[in-house]
Order: sequence, then structure tokens, then C-alpha cells
Amino acid sequence: MSNPFFKNHGPFLASDISKFLNIKIDYSKKDIELNDIKDLYSSKNSNITFFHSKKYKEAAKNTKASYCITTESLKNELPTSCIPLVVENVLVSVSKITSAFYPDAINDDFDDSANYIDDTDYKDTVVFGKHVLIGKNVLIGTNCKIGHNTIIEKNVSIGNNCSIGSNTLIRNSLISNNVKILDNCVIGKHGFGFFPNNKKNLRYPHIGAVIIEENCEIGCGSTIDRGSMSNTVIGKNTYLDNQIHIAHNVKIGENSIIAGQVGIAGSSIIGSNVRIGGQAGISGHIKIGNNVEIGGGSGVIKSIPDNTKVMGYPAKKIRDFLRDNK
Amino acid sequence: MSNPFFKNHGPFLASDISKFLNIKIDYSKKDIELNDIKDLYSSKNSNITFFHSKKYKEAAKNTKASYCITTESLKNELPTSCIPLVVENVLVSVSKITSAFYPDAINDDFDDSANYIDDTDYKDTVVFGKHVLIGKNVLIGTNCKIGHNTIIEKNVSIGNNCSIGSNTLIRNSLISNNVKILDNCVIGKHGFGFFPNNKKNLRYPHIGAVIIEENCEIGCGSTIDRGSMSNTVIGKNTYLDNQIHIAHNVKIGENSIIAGQVGIAGSSIIGSNVRIGGQAGISGHIKIGNNVEIGGGSGVIKSIPDNTKVMGYPAKKIRDFLRDNK
Amino acid sequence: MSNPFFKNHGPFLASDISKFLNIKIDYSKKDIELNDIKDLYSSKNSNITFFHSKKYKEAAKNTKASYCITTESLKNELPTSCIPLVVENVLVSVSKITSAFYPDAINDDFDDSANYIDDTDYKDTVVFGKHVLIGKNVLIGTNCKIGHNTIIEKNVSIGNNCSIGSNTLIRNSLISNNVKILDNCVIGKHGFGFFPNNKKNLRYPHIGAVIIEENCEIGCGSTIDRGSMSNTVIGKNTYLDNQIHIAHNVKIGENSIIAGQVGIAGSSIIGSNVRIGGQAGISGHIKIGNNVEIGGGSGVIKSIPDNTKVMGYPAKKIRDFLRDNK
Repeated sequence: MSNPFFKNHGPFLASDISKFLNIKIDYSKKDIELNDIKDLYSSKNSNITFFHSKKYKEAAKNTKASYCITTESLKNELPTSCIPLVVENVLVSVSKITSAFYPDAINDDFDDSANYIDDTDYKDTVVFGKHVLIGKNVLIGTNCKIGHNTIIEKNVSIGNNCSIGSNTLIRNSLISNNVKILDNCVIGKHGFGFFPNNKKNLRYPHIGAVIIEENCEIGCGSTIDRGSMSNTVIGKNTYLDNQIHIAHNVKIGENSIIAGQVGIAGSSIIGSNVRIGGQAGISGHIKIGNNVEIGGGSGVIKSIPDNTKVMGYPAKKIRDFLRDNK
Repeated sequence: MSNPFFKNHGPFLASDISKFLNIKIDYSKKDIELNDIKDLYSSKNSNITFFHSKKYKEAAKNTKASYCITTESLKNELPTSCIPLVVENVLVSVSKITSAFYPDAINDDFDDSANYIDDTDYKDTVVFGKHVLIGKNVLIGTNCKIGHNTIIEKNVSIGNNCSIGSNTLIRNSLISNNVKILDNCVIGKHGFGFFPNNKKNLRYPHIGAVIIEENCEIGCGSTIDRGSMSNTVIGKNTYLDNQIHIAHNVKIGENSIIAGQVGIAGSSIIGSNVRIGGQAGISGHIKIGNNVEIGGGSGVIKSIPDNTKVMGYPAKKIRDFLRDNK
Repeated sequence: MSNPFFKNHGPFLASDISKFLNIKIDYSKKDIELNDIKDLYSSKNSNITFFHSKKYKEAAKNTKASYCITTESLKNELPTSCIPLVVENVLVSVSKITSAFYPDAINDDFDDSANYIDDTDYKDTVVFGKHVLIGKNVLIGTNCKIGHNTIIEKNVSIGNNCSIGSNTLIRNSLISNNVKILDNCVIGKHGFGFFPNNKKNLRYPHIGAVIIEENCEIGCGSTIDRGSMSNTVIGKNTYLDNQIHIAHNVKIGENSIIAGQVGIAGSSIIGSNVRIGGQAGISGHIKIGNNVEIGGGSGVIKSIPDNTKVMGYPAKKIRDFLRDNK
């Protein structure tokens, strides 16, 4: 799928990308056009990808990308069809190249293309409150309601029978049918992703979206950040309570229930039929299986297998938590 | 008290309710009109109530309701004056009957009756900011201030000398004199209450209100959900800091002080003169006594007697917490 | 520095202040004008200060203030150049005197001086969204963006190249160059500071500001309260994620990174190059050194020296936390 929201300013010649990264490769015999940057899994021929951690060795072996930004120690894991570009810091280099392809995905300044819904065709098909604003590239289905002061910034698709509350802001999101988003939410802003740098941190682009599948509900005051390279996903019929924070690249399965003030850090994967009690926190880059129950207040710092009940900080099996705290 | 906010679409014949719940009772001799659904405590003659857990045995014995939705194993606890309607799942049945009485209490779509305060009589009696909206059935006392972009949706009563901040949304709430509600709050939305159901959860109605007694202060970015069958109550002179979440049916006593980012789960009862430190969490359906102090960050998962200081997760006597963590 | 935001209604005669506090001192020989109230460190000749805890003994010995509100047991720590005013409750007395100097610093009602930016000179120099409001005494630099529905209340200075999101509210703040503040934030409201009092708590004035130094980023839904006697400070190039709460008088150093839903209680000092994981909480009145790392979910209840990694609740050295939780 080509990126639905950010204009791709490619293709770029492999030789130009190499030059930009200060890498010397002899392109006199063969230079090709690279038309997009993708992760190891979704890359195709004529894409450039990146490989920065042994964790992704299997994916690296099978990548279909033509080029890969990686390190000296990892480059031999790549298939012969994929030419390594060896750099010092993979993620900083990825950020530079992604910014070249998608220069509009770095800043999250307010959308000055947003205008009154009364001045759009949606004035006849949507039930809306006062001061509702709609940006460019917004699609809204039938039988939708949008509350007062809500801003649907550019690059949003909303399905049928959706109810959006008041004072809410949405951008870069794909929202399915029968979704409810309550008041004072911010959905689709860039994540808390940047390279720390003395005196001035370096923000990297967030080219992903927020995807909210059908029948979901998102509580008041919640924030859901869009993904950096992949998407942030809330699965079908999953309900979020108030004041929840979902960081970038998180995927949550179907029929899950997440209570108030829970926070899920970046890139974690949550299964289906998961229940998370209030104020629990989930670390980044871990995997919570299906049918897991996490007690309120827990701090989950490692992956949890399917069908497990955990509680505590750090979270352990609930049986052990109760025994240790008699 | 009849419900101040939601129109009661009853009465309904007991025979009709039984039929709706798929229950066979011979009404050929005696059928009566049931005019409201209430909890065990507040039910009166000609009301229908519900009884779903042994915890409420005492209340069940003394209920004045004429009918009661309950289970086979609990029905014998009811007085002879109360006719049991035996069902598989009490709460789902209660939800159905409550929805019949109060069909408007299920959805929390934005209030499209809200209009500019400048077009109401309050334009001369309230000091207000730009874009303030006022819904139907709103009462505002003397000497009140309402900040920019704030929306007082339908069914709100505000006392005298109140100060409401900007970007705040209030509905279904009774607010006494001298109350301050700061910015970016959402007060009075339905709670996180529903029956989980594969593919599409079933929301139940929230016919309660939020009651904020005099001299209270509610900090920025806080959310207070209205009750389902009873009310959510903040007692006199209780102060809430920023980013607090109070779930449905919670009752908080007088003169309590609750620091930032605290969360209190549904139906818990908090006493008077209670102090709760920042980020503490209180589980649902428990009771915190008077004069209790709860340390910052605590996770309270069981009831706490009067005059106790606790800390930790799970919270224990502060003396024990300090000893165990030397 | 004189207070940039609140009008000083002084000077007051020492004899009048003494009378107001119900203190009998013979002023027949020498009475002087006191022109401001300051903390022990920043007080100068002709200022009145306060000293309420042994913790500040060193500062008291060196204060340059002419008068000091203190207790019988502490008064002998003061230099002979500083005349003690002995009271029962230092902080309540300080509150009274501060309120006399700065009567406008107690209430945080919405700013009814705020008006449409289109009606100000900034309409030509700022890129702004719909419904942006600007209060009195606001300065905005060049090349700034302000999103929809955002309210810059009175007493705010914004540097150059700043980007403010939508639905955000700022007052009493000094914001340097290249700062980003995202959506739904509330910056500069008074802190959660008051004297508990049966039936009606007594708010004390907050005469400090929020200072956000250059290159900072503040995430969506965050709240930063202004200081009471001193300022709340976010140091250069420090990044805050979403839903963070920073209480009054907190100082954070440079190049620090604070993840989502963190809360920092009043008057704590955080060093430079500090990293705080998601949902961690920091107690009030403690000091976190430079280069400290605090794990997600931690509850930090005592000061942490430089160059330390901690985790847990209560937070301990991360090595110990991992060992104790194997």
C-alpha cells in the first residue's frame, strides 16, 4: 500500500541516497531508482529498508528490499538480493532518508487548511456542532455526528455511524464504522520519537497512521499517537476508558477492554480479548498475548503469554502477586 | 426523587416487562403498573429493582420494591411483598429494562441543542468568554463566570459564585455554590459501563448525575463520569488536582484532598477528610474510611478503615510499607 | 527581578504588616517600608521573607531580607539584620501578606480580557487558526504558529519560531525560542496550593510563572502549573510526552526526556540529562540529580544522587530492583 497521507517525494537514485549518507559505493555499473522506504517485512523490490538489531534477523534474511541501511556487524544476515548501506547509526540514517521521502511527516504544526464544515459538502450529510473544522483530504461516511469545537485535521477517513465528541482533534487517522470517540481527545499526532541530541533533539518523521477498527470506543481525554514507520492500530470492538495514552506503533487486538489512565508505550503489541485494569502501564516493544488479564496499577515490563492473569509492578502471575502480598 | 435529567418513558405493566424478559408469570389475577427502576435501597412500592449479588442480601430483605430482577439462588432472600423475576443474567436484564424506562440515557452523542449563551437570558447575568454554549434545561445562579469555548450541555444546574474555566464540557450535573472547575475538564459523561460482547459490546444506560457540593475545586484536565443507577458525588469543600479521573457511582466525602493524576474506579466510596497522594489508584467497589491518608503512587485494592495511613501497591499500613522498604 | 505579571500593591509599612499579623512590636523608633515578599534566597534589603522549616537554616542565616515571618523556635537562626515576626502558622501568614502585595494572584478565573487575534497586531505576524484568543500583556515573536481554539491569556511572552497546537491554554508564562507546545495543554494556571480548612479551604496566591526554555517540546494534554513564590522551570531542550503533569515550583534541567503520564509533585528539582520512563511519579520537595534514569512506573519518594539508575516503588537502584524481582 502506498502511504495514504504523506506525499512521497521519491523516487531517489541509490547513488544519491548513498551520497547523502556519506557512503562510497561504485554505481558506475548499476544504479537504480528506490521508490519508498519500508520496514523489513513490507519492503518490496525497489524499496530501501533498515536493519538495526539482531532481534530482526529472521525478517532481514527474507526481506525483498533492494537496499538496506544497516551496520557492519549485521550486514551479512541480508540476502544477496539486498545491498547493504553500512552506517554508524542506523536509526539516524533512516530518519534522514525517511525525511527525504516524506518531508511533510516531521512537523505537527496545526493544520491551517482546516475550515468550517459549513463550507464543505459535509454540511448536509453530517450532524455537527458549533465551530467544527475540517481539513483537506477528509472523508466522512453517512450518519455521523461531530461535536462542538472538534477539529478533523487533514488526512482523516471516518466510516459510517460514527460519533465524535466535542473539543476533540483528529489527524492522520483511518476510522471504521460505528466508532465512538469522546471529548477532549487527540488522535493521530506524531509519537514521542526523536534522537536525543545535546542542545537540540532531532525529531524523526512519523509516516504511519492511527487505525481504529469498527465498533471501538475511545474515552474522554485520551491520546493515540500515529505510527512512525508502521501504524498504530486499535482492533475491532475494543473499548478504551478516559485519559488513556497509546503511544506510536502500538497494535491492540479485538474485543479488548482498557480501563482509565492506562498507558501503553511505543511499539508494543496487545492481543485480543485482553483486559487491562486502571492505571496499568505497559512497557514499549513487548508483546501481550490473547486473553490476558492485567490487574489495575500493574507495571508490565516483559512480554506476557496467552491466557495469563498478571498483576503487580513488575507484573507477575496474579497467584504469585496475591501470595507475596498476603 | 424522580430523575431530574432523563425523561421516564414508563410506567410499564409488570406483564409487559416479564414478557420482554421472556419470563412466564400468570398475570390473569393481578397485574400492576411499574413506574420506575431503582436500586434496592431507594425502591418504593410500584418500582422494579434488581438483586444480583449476596453482598446486597440485607438490602434485599428490606426492599420496598414491588418487583425484583434476580436469580434462582437469590430470590428467596426477597420479602413476600416483592415478586422475583428470575433471569439468567441480572445486569443485562436490568440494562434492558432501564433502557426501556430511559432510552435517552444510553448514548452520549454531543448535545446539538447547545447554543450561544449570547442568545439566552444568561447573557446578562453570567460573565462569560467567547464561544460559550448552553444546552437545554440548564440553570445558572448569580455571580458565575464561564470561560472561553466551554460547553454547558443539557441538564446542568450551577449554583451561585461558581467559576468554570475554558475548554470545559459539563452535562448531567448538579453543581452547588462556590464551586471552581478549571480548564479542559469533562464532567458528567457516561461511565465506562457496558456488557462485553464479542464483536459489539452492549452499553447500558447511565441515568445518574454528577453532584458537586459547595466549595469544591476540580483541577484542569479532570474527568468525572456520571453514575449508572446512582449518582457520582464530590462532597463539600473537597479539592481535586489536575488530571484526575473519577469513575461512575463514586462518592467522595467532605474536606478531602486528592492530588494530581489520581484515579478512582467505579462505585467506590471515599470518606471525609481523606488525603490521597499523586497518581494513587483506588480499585472499584471498595470503601475508604474517614480521615484516611493514602500515599502518592499507592494502589489500593481493598477497603481501608477510618483513621488509617496506607501506602504501597498493594497499599498497606504506612508503617509496614516503610519497614518493608528500608 | 520585579514580578513580571502581577501588580505589586506595596510597599507596606512594617508596622502595618505587624498589625495585620496581630504582632506587637514597638515601631516608635524605627519603622520602614517593605516593598516585596520573597523567599529566603532572593530577598534583599527592604523585603520581607519567611522561614518555616529547619531545612532552610543555611538560607535563613544568609538572608538579606529586613523582616522575616517565622516561629519562636526558628527565629534565632536569622541574622541580626533581619527582624523576626513570630507567628503560629508561618505559611498562612505568608499567604496573607502575599495576598496583600499581590491580590490578583489568588484567583484563576478565565481571562475576560482575551480577544480575537484578528483584532490585534499579531494578525500579520503570526500564522494562526480559527478562534485564537489573545489576552492583555502578551508578546509573540516572529515566525510563530498558534492552532485553532487556542487561548493565550494575559501575561504571556512567546519567543521566535514557536509552534503552539490547538485547544491549548497558556497564561503567566515565559516561553523561549523554538518551543513546541502540542494540543489540549494547560500551562501557567495556579498550583494545587492552599491551606486545608474545614468547610472552606484557603487558597494562597501563586505569584510565580512558568518558564519554558528554548527548544523544548510539551506533549498533548499536559498541564504545567505556575509557581507560588518561585517559578516553575522547564530547561532547554527538555522534551515532555503526552499527559504529563508538572506541579508548581518544579524545576527541570536541560536535555531531559520525560515519557507519557509522568507526574512531578510540587517544588521538586530535576537535574539535566535526566530520563524518566512513562507513568513514573516524583514526590514533592525532593531533588533528582543530573544524568539520572528513572524506570517507567517508578515511584520516587526520596532524593536521587547524580548518575544513578533507579526503578521501583519506592524507587531503588535498578540493580537492586531487578535482583529483588527475579
